Amino acid sequence: MILERIESPSDLRKLSFSELETLAHEIRAYVLQTVAETGGHLAPNLGVVELTIALHLVFNSPRDKIIWDVGHQSYVHKILTGRRKQFSTLRQYGGLSGFPKLRESIHDCFETGHSSTSISAALGMALARDLDRDNFSVVAVIGDGALTGGMAYEALNHAGQLGTRLIVVLNDNEMSITKNVGAMAGYLSRLRTDPLYHRSKEEIEEILRRIPNIGPRMVKAVERFKDSIKYLLVSGIIFEELGFTYLGPIDGHNIKLLHQVFERAKMLSGPVLIHVYTKKGKGYTPAEKNPDKFHGIGPFDLKTGVPYSKGPAPTYTQVFGECICRLAEKNPRLVAITAAMTDGTGLSNFARKFPKRFFDVGIAEQHAVTLAAGLARGGYQPVVVIYSTFLQRAYDQIVHDVALQGLPVVFALDRAGIVGEDGETHQGLFDLSYLRSIPGMIIMTPKDQNELAVMLANALDYKRPTAIRYPRGNGNNLVFEYKPESITPGQGEVLREGKDLAIFGVGPLVYAALEAAEQLEKDNCSVAVINCRFVKPLDEDLILKWAEKTGRVLTLEENVLAGGFGSAVLEFLTERGFRGEVARIGIPDCFVEHGAPDLLRRHYGLDAQGIVDFVKAKGW
Amino acid sequence: MILERIESPSDLRKLSFSELETLAHEIRAYVLQTVAETGGHLAPNLGVVELTIALHLVFNSPRDKIIWDVGHQSYVHKILTGRRKQFSTLRQYGGLSGFPKLRESIHDCFETGHSSTSISAALGMALARDLDRDNFSVVAVIGDGALTGGMAYEALNHAGQLGTRLIVVLNDNEMSITKNVGAMAGYLSRLRTDPLYHRSKEEIEEILRRIPNIGPRMVKAVERFKDSIKYLLVSGIIFEELGFTYLGPIDGHNIKLLHQVFERAKMLSGPVLIHVYTKKGKGYTPAEKNPDKFHGIGPFDLKTGVPYSKGPAPTYTQVFGECICRLAEKNPRLVAITAAMTDGTGLSNFARKFPKRFFDVGIAEQHAVTLAAGLARGGYQPVVVIYSTFLQRAYDQIVHDVALQGLPVVFALDRAGIVGEDGETHQGLFDLSYLRSIPGMIIMTPKDQNELAVMLANALDYKRPTAIRYPRGNGNNLVFEYKPESITPGQGEVLREGKDLAIFGVGPLVYAALEAAEQLEKDNCSVAVINCRFVKPLDEDLILKWAEKTGRVLTLEENVLAGGFGSAVLEFLTERGFRGEVARIGIPDCFVEHGAPDLLRRHYGLDAQGIVDFVKAKGW
Repeated sequence: MILERIESPSDLRKLSFSELETLAHEIRAYVLQTVAETGGHLAPNLGVVELTIALHLVFNSPRDKIIWDVGHQSYVHKILTGRRKQFSTLRQYGGLSGFPKLRESIHDCFETGHSSTSISAALGMALARDLDRDNFSVVAVIGDGALTGGMAYEALNHAGQLGTRLIVVLNDNEMSITKNVGAMAGYLSRLRTDPLYHRSKEEIEEILRRIPNIGPRMVKAVERFKDSIKYLLVSGIIFEELGFTYLGPIDGHNIKLLHQVFERAKMLSGPVLIHVYTKKGKGYTPAEKNPDKFHGIGPFDLKTGVPYSKGPAPTYTQVFGECICRLAEKNPRLVAITAAMTDGTGLSNFARKFPKRFFDVGIAEQHAVTLAAGLARGGYQPVVVIYSTFLQRAYDQIVHDVALQGLPVVFALDRAGIVGEDGETHQGLFDLSYLRSIPGMIIMTPKDQNELAVMLANALDYKRPTAIRYPRGNGNNLVFEYKPESITPGQGEVLREGKDLAIFGVGPLVYAALEAAEQLEKDNCSVAVINCRFVKPLDEDLILKWAEKTGRVLTLEENVLAGGFGSAVLEFLTERGFRGEVARIGIPDCFVEHGAPDLLRRHYGLDAQGIVDFVKAKGW
Repeated sequence: MILERIESPSDLRKLSFSELETLAHEIRAYVLQTVAETGGHLAPNLGVVELTIALHLVFNSPRDKIIWDVGHQSYVHKILTGRRKQFSTLRQYGGLSGFPKLRESIHDCFETGHSSTSISAALGMALARDLDRDNFSVVAVIGDGALTGGMAYEALNHAGQLGTRLIVVLNDNEMSITKNVGAMAGYLSRLRTDPLYHRSKEEIEEILRRIPNIGPRMVKAVERFKDSIKYLLVSGIIFEELGFTYLGPIDGHNIKLLHQVFERAKMLSGPVLIHVYTKKGKGYTPAEKNPDKFHGIGPFDLKTGVPYSKGPAPTYTQVFGECICRLAEKNPRLVAITAAMTDGTGLSNFARKFPKRFFDVGIAEQHAVTLAAGLARGGYQPVVVIYSTFLQRAYDQIVHDVALQGLPVVFALDRAGIVGEDGETHQGLFDLSYLRSIPGMIIMTPKDQNELAVMLANALDYKRPTAIRYPRGNGNNLVFEYKPESITPGQGEVLREGKDLAIFGVGPLVYAALEAAEQLEKDNCSVAVINCRFVKPLDEDLILKWAEKTGRVLTLEENVLAGGFGSAVLEFLTERGFRGEVARIGIPDCFVEHGAPDLLRRHYGLDAQGIVDFVKAKGW
């Protein structure tokens, strides 16, 4: 095994190109074997094996900086930078993160998780380098999917103007998670395939020969030359017009070619964009055939590629996907919008059944929300389906384009609360706080999948800015049943009566509360459990009634405590002059690490045992 | 006066081109005269007089939709759409808004205020139209400055792929507020001036002649033709590659030419970008010479162009600008970043003195924040200076790129709290809530300019993610004095002792509290006033001590009550088992309209009288 000899990137430089190719095979096998057990972002990593090897061959990390956009494609990087042996702990509580982490390695120079940040971060580091009169290289590795995010363009626009020395490796696999969308994707595809654009390997080598190894004067001569032939060559002209030198397209599975191009790119004085094309899932047939299914995946059978069962209950996502189709059949004005997450948000069926009413905007959450506002002004009822953590990027658009005009847009926030193995960057633990401060918003959170179905139907009736946030994974109903119910905004429900303590909860935590209530009953503490269902508006009468009945209030939420649901209850009870005791359970002032959701819930006391312990510690 | 005959856009169609030109002069004079009295966005509106006339001449509003990006250039539109007589009430409490408002007119079809939203909104409305099989036109009018915002690119990318019929008028005046930045600006400038790109009026007319009036088959023929000559014509190729038909550049002060081009553009079946160049401030010499000074301006002397004095006290912005220069002299690692607001944020001197350490990224708040994170990782200490309301757009980047990595970035939030005449879209009333939920953030808010200076110096010492939010306008210190003081995170100060009530405040409201305390003293209510200075972390000992001493707590903030400062105090006191009374003053769950800041504060009870009334109503 060559892999066993790689303790740091410098070991790569001792190998021949043929050994490096063997190494690529070994890494692929190792990644496959591990991810089949741990789950993770398989297809993106299989696609960048040669690219990562070539980067570490040419660039001298940690002196040279490599920034991985999104970061879920950093497994090979982790294996090559001294974390091979810990790799089996991937995404497990206390183990290696699935994303770059400063605390893990000096080779992880910038943390990522959300899309399209790498060019901005790289430019910042390159500017710091220039101020220090240093001369290392800074490389951002960004997928064509991430290039649909507006901030990537903001960064290109700025870098191109400044002329800072910076390398952007565009890893083009025609995918974000599913097939990539947008006019830019079409442009990249033309660059790859159109004879008017496409260059042979020989032509690339010819161009590389023209790039001198050193000397600013020579570089300037080349740039003049480049300018003069730009309109004839055409290739990559969008990037050239934005001030970048465009090199490509280049086969991203050819280590020798990548090595050559990177070596020369290092010498250029301004910003360079290297257009590399790779195959997502490369080397594992099931993943090559279904790169979206293998984008992020749980543990699976390596031989067949079939994921192990996640348990019998339907997921919230599945139920959402089924319900939105049913509602769309009856309501011709319902339209759905996703940001590059058709499958992950359960919208695949909707997309098939209602192609004209379905919009995948790419990784462009800001545009998604304002597009919805426009559709709403045009008389339609948009449902914007985005993971909680990614909707953070459209906070301003929710405030400014939807809430301010009071438009009937429904936000479906999947993956809200603790998401587990993806860790800090992906936990959906801020939405209740950031949405609650927005005037007029309605915020719902269902206790199980059946309630999600009811809430979605009601949300469309409210015809006001409305958010429904629901968790990742299987819900508490083993079988999904739709029981129509009209819920007025705010309306909660009493799940259990009691006289010593009232627990107000939202989301599946109310089931934990019921379990806790059973246990506390045995210790002669009679507990009422109220499913508030709404974080905003609150069911004021119900809350006040049970607070006063019991004199003791405990709130539950899977959200940071600062400004969340419990804070809303507290604000309300204080305004009404409630003089009893109030306590809140939720996430404290910290980012929540990766690990199995149940382990994390245990750690933060967000389960029945945690509630019981909390109540007993209070002496209630 | 021709202007007096214009009650609706249809009246324009009764006029000859020469009368329309006279009308343009009359409108200019009317805008000038009014804005000299009311203040407002002068230069942008003087620049779009002919453009607005031509738009309303060709497009049939409200059936055709015109969406004004940012919206501060909508004065001419307001005058032409039945609001001529109310125009003198511009930006005053109860009067016309300085931005498009649904409630004002059916001709205002989408509300704007923040930058770069118009193409997304227009695309949404165009898609709704297509679903309805209707055929009106949708026009987004966007400045070259707003085109630096990433979401504009997200929308172009999506529209170009869909091929939706849509018109984007790019109003290119080489400015956002100050001189525009970014590689795209360079590209647009080349389009305007390079002989390789630039087309004569005759050439434009020739191209227009080739655009047929009707018939999809003919349109397709033209598109094929267009494709084949694209690489020869080159002009506007970035937009062409993104799927748009590019028309331009066109003189935006020539009504006849604009009329011609708009008429033909209406006929095209896919997305069109019309590149119009205009002169910001056109027709008023002081504004033409200093378009940035006249971008947004208070009342001024029409003859000289000199603004009327704003009062003797220095503004927070001025003090910030002075202090950051002083600090940068001592600290060579301090860098400053603004998003197209060099002058507005007080950074002009810094930019002149430290050009290498100053970065204006254009209207690109997301990139600004992550760029700062990159600079921080490179060992620098970035100060990101953005208005409170605009920083909303970078919420995710603050969470994900700065706070998660605990980077030493200082956010200076100018225009926080009530900003006044700009109204709903510009009030900075959410920052305390959205920042407070972010783990580890330090949030400060000074009571006056002197304290701002002290806070800025301390913030740089904390070397952690830190925000300072301060209001628009003059502060309470008539003369700025810098008194160095070391403040530990959280540390509050007692401004006044008392035994019946403790008022905890942040920001200039503590002065109102002191005044209220004087009045309440006369009624035998002894009031302590504590300037908490920090919203996070809180001065726990100090707050608990005074809460328990008095048994009654009142919090003050210029922020929404949901999740803000008062909520933080309430959360803390509840956790510590405080059993006294707590009440909070702040902004209720609504968007705050435009008007003079003092009037708005009066309305919301955010002044001494409001505090006195509140305390008395409580019976304290």
